[in-house]
Amino acid sequence: MFPLDTIGRVALVTALAEEEERKSLALKARTNGYTVCLGRVGSMDSEKVVAAIETAAVREGLTRPEYPEEHALYHAIIEALHGVTRGQMVLSGIHRTVGLRFSVVRGPRSVSVPSHGEWVAVGLYGTIGAPLKGNEHEVVGLGMSHL
Amino acid sequence: MFPLDTIGRVALVTALAEEEERKSLALKARTNGYTVCLGRVGSMDSEKVVAAIETAAVREGLTRPEYPEEHALYHAIIEALHGVTRGQMVLSGIHRTVGLRFSVVRGPRSVSVPSHGEWVAVGLYGTIGAPLKGNEHEVVGLGMSHL
Amino acid sequence: MFPLDTIGRVALVTALAEEEERKSLALKARTNGYTVCLGRVGSMDSEKVVAAIETAAVREGLTRPEYPEEHALYHAIIEALHGVTRGQMVLSGIHRTVGLRFSVVRGPRSVSVPSHGEWVAVGLYGTIGAPLKGNEHEVVGLGMSHL
Amino acid sequence: MFPLDTIGRVALVTALAEEEERKSLALKARTNGYTVCLGRVGSMDSEKVVAAIETAAVREGLTRPEYPEEHALYHAIIEALHGVTRGQMVLSGIHRTVGLRFSVVRGPRSVSVPSHGEWVAVGLYGTIGAPLKGNEHEVVGLGMSHL
Amino acid sequence: MFPLDTIGRVALVTALAEEEERKSLALKARTNGYTVCLGRVGSMDSEKVVAAIETAAVREGLTRPEYPEEHALYHAIIEALHGVTRGQMVLSGIHRTVGLRFSVVRGPRSVSVPSHGEWVAVGLYGTIGAPLKGNEHEVVGLGMSHL
Amino acid sequence: MFPLDTIGRVALVTALAEEEERKSLALKARTNGYTVCLGRVGSMDSEKVVAAIETAAVREGLTRPEYPEEHALYHAIIEALHGVTRGQMVLSGIHRTVGLRFSVVRGPRSVSVPSHGEWVAVGLYGTIGAPLKGNEHEVVGLGMSHL
Repeated sequence: MFPLDTIGRVALVTALAEEEERKSLALKARTNGYTVCLGRVGSMDSEKVVAAIETAAVREGLTRPEYPEEHALYHAIIEALHGVTRGQMVLSGIHRTVGLRFSVVRGPRSVSVPSHGEWVAVGLYGTIGAPLKGNEHEVVGLGMSHL
Repeated sequence: MFPLDTIGRVALVTALAEEEERKSLALKARTNGYTVCLGRVGSMDSEKVVAAIETAAVREGLTRPEYPEEHALYHAIIEALHGVTRGQMVLSGIHRTVGLRFSVVRGPRSVSVPSHGEWVAVGLYGTIGAPLKGNEHEVVGLGMSHL
Repeated sequence: MFPLDTIGRVALVTALAEEEERKSLALKARTNGYTVCLGRVGSMDSEKVVAAIETAAVREGLTRPEYPEEHALYHAIIEALHGVTRGQMVLSGIHRTVGLRFSVVRGPRSVSVPSHGEWVAVGLYGTIGAPLKGNEHEVVGLGMSHL
Repeated sequence: MFPLDTIGRVALVTALAEEEERKSLALKARTNGYTVCLGRVGSMDSEKVVAAIETAAVREGLTRPEYPEEHALYHAIIEALHGVTRGQMVLSGIHRTVGLRFSVVRGPRSVSVPSHGEWVAVGLYGTIGAPLKGNEHEVVGLGMSHL
Repeated sequence: MFPLDTIGRVALVTALAEEEERKSLALKARTNGYTVCLGRVGSMDSEKVVAAIETAAVREGLTRPEYPEEHALYHAIIEALHGVTRGQMVLSGIHRTVGLRFSVVRGPRSVSVPSHGEWVAVGLYGTIGAPLKGNEHEVVGLGMSHL
Repeated sequence: MFPLDTIGRVALVTALAEEEERKSLALKARTNGYTVCLGRVGSMDSEKVVAAIETAAVREGLTRPEYPEEHALYHAIIEALHGVTRGQMVLSGIHRTVGLRFSVVRGPRSVSVPSHGEWVAVGLYGTIGAPLKGNEHEVVGLGMSHL
């Protein structure tokens, strides 16, 4: 249904899909030249969200352990968090918590413009709300940077 | 692939899909109790983006012409724009432009919790970049409010 | 002196007034169709400010224990905090503390337009400053949402 | 009802009051050592709001035509606009307009602590909303700076 | 006095220096592996500030005419503007104007860590203030991105 | 190289210089009528950064222990932090840390316009990055207020 041919769509689709479909979508994206790292994180502590995504990407070798790539990944994470937090990058500080699926993707900005270098994208999908089960709604975020 | 059973997923999937599939996805979501209004807007002028979405939703009768519903829609639009603009809600003012598909959805927060009232969600997907063809990358936004 | 005929004025006047007058003003507003919940909170921890207001409103039955109403109240609180924090929704993180009187009001946006549904408004008035007695000045905030 | 004995309350009360009462409240505040300048401004253009307040204060001699005082006034205006705009200091750019009464006050932070120098405060009260009569709700703002 | 051995210092020093010294400092930095592009821009229109810096860097060949490098430069400019605008990336919209010297630098993050790839940095120094000669004060900004 | 004749340049130059040169630059600035207080602070906790600067300025008698002067200093610090944090005034909350040299300066806005009152400026220079040695880059900030 969704051609997995741009880095943003790969990041979003693999974050949005049901847990059991995420891996097969990631594999399909791989045939288009995208490497995908999947994970989940739930916390009232925004620092833990950032650290969980960084750690997953580094551990799976998606980004090289060099500062330029880590800088790119960090900026992609922070941009994606803007979509999730919508104005103030604070969770517990304003009494809210998130439960997110994340996806980190490496590859061309678009399959049709592969010559323009590699990029990293972070997709986030899940819920934000009060620290009370059920009092929450969906949120999404997408950030990206050149590598 | 994506169960159209939460308002956020309906908004995102109908914004993310290829132009020719959006309508059929919107119809499928309708069987789950969601009304969907689809559109596109491209501009360097953020005001035009807000106005295009408001106008489409009102014209198609998705929101009632009463202030509370328009207030809800407005807040959902602004929240979605946070994901697109990532920090400063300014387009031409910092020399950038957007091309977006939008989707406005009305219905339950989730098919499985229909008793919690109606909500409105706005999904945005497209590109942001310099006012120069090709110098752009994908962005996404999702905002929602109770009705 | 102040006609208590709009939800914002009711919220502000009952937050601004001297402690001993707040209750009688709240009672007067009740004759115009407004329910008012009053309280105070002082903290360096912004989370405690949000939680104190939410708890007071729920405990006094001003908002129904359903997510749409809690979502409306939450947004009204966050909007009011913008007036208090003026740019960064952080207290201890930038070495400052608040002492606030709050007021949560439920009713029509205006007595003269009662048909446009119910709204919830949050009024905040007090001081912000260094965690050192006397080094502080007044702040105010008003937020509102449709119910 | 409201003791006019702090600069913030003077600014807010003279902004909140009915048009015909504002002048007499300003005069009463004068007996407490406060100078007050009153005005109104309605615009979709945030620049006009800032300029209207600056011009009124300078024209009435409330602030001296020297940069330090104008700098203090400017910061007080911008702080007050945070309460009105709640997150993004943009009006027409996100398709909204304001109608505000403003009040600029000069005097001690509090009548009971006159030794701590002179301050300037800006109070704003009015409505924000869509550029469509009736689709608007109340907003308030208070900013202040030492002189 | 200032060892020109980190990209940030090169960007700041060549922005801060007197007009007649900027070129010789840029040449000295070149011996450390830094390419520097210098310019000036004054405007109430933030878009013109962004465009002036982008145009200068592209025209002098400091960044390659490919999107990844232009994306890096754009982010460095926006980061530097945070230091100049301090909260709201708006100039005329809140009735203020800037007069800035800018410097765009390409090279290693630090002479002592040349292996960590190339970076681009933007230094800004000048004044911000009311559109009235003399009512202004100094501002500075520094932004950077990996290439 | 840099005429120490404006408060912003004094603050920046004494923050940017090598540790062993800072004191002699501060002394030179003193002959132009500027008092300078120097220090360093490294932390993931933004509150500690604010408190370290406030404490140093008060301890060295740069600002008088009265609220108006402390209010001016506080605003100068917060403005300078905008340049360092570039969007969200949060350090550990988004998994980053700073190492900064700071400089607080008191004196005329410019040696050539001494009649316009005294000002206080805060200059910050150092690095921001992941809590991992080497994964960091330079940042700068400048804030100022009238006294």
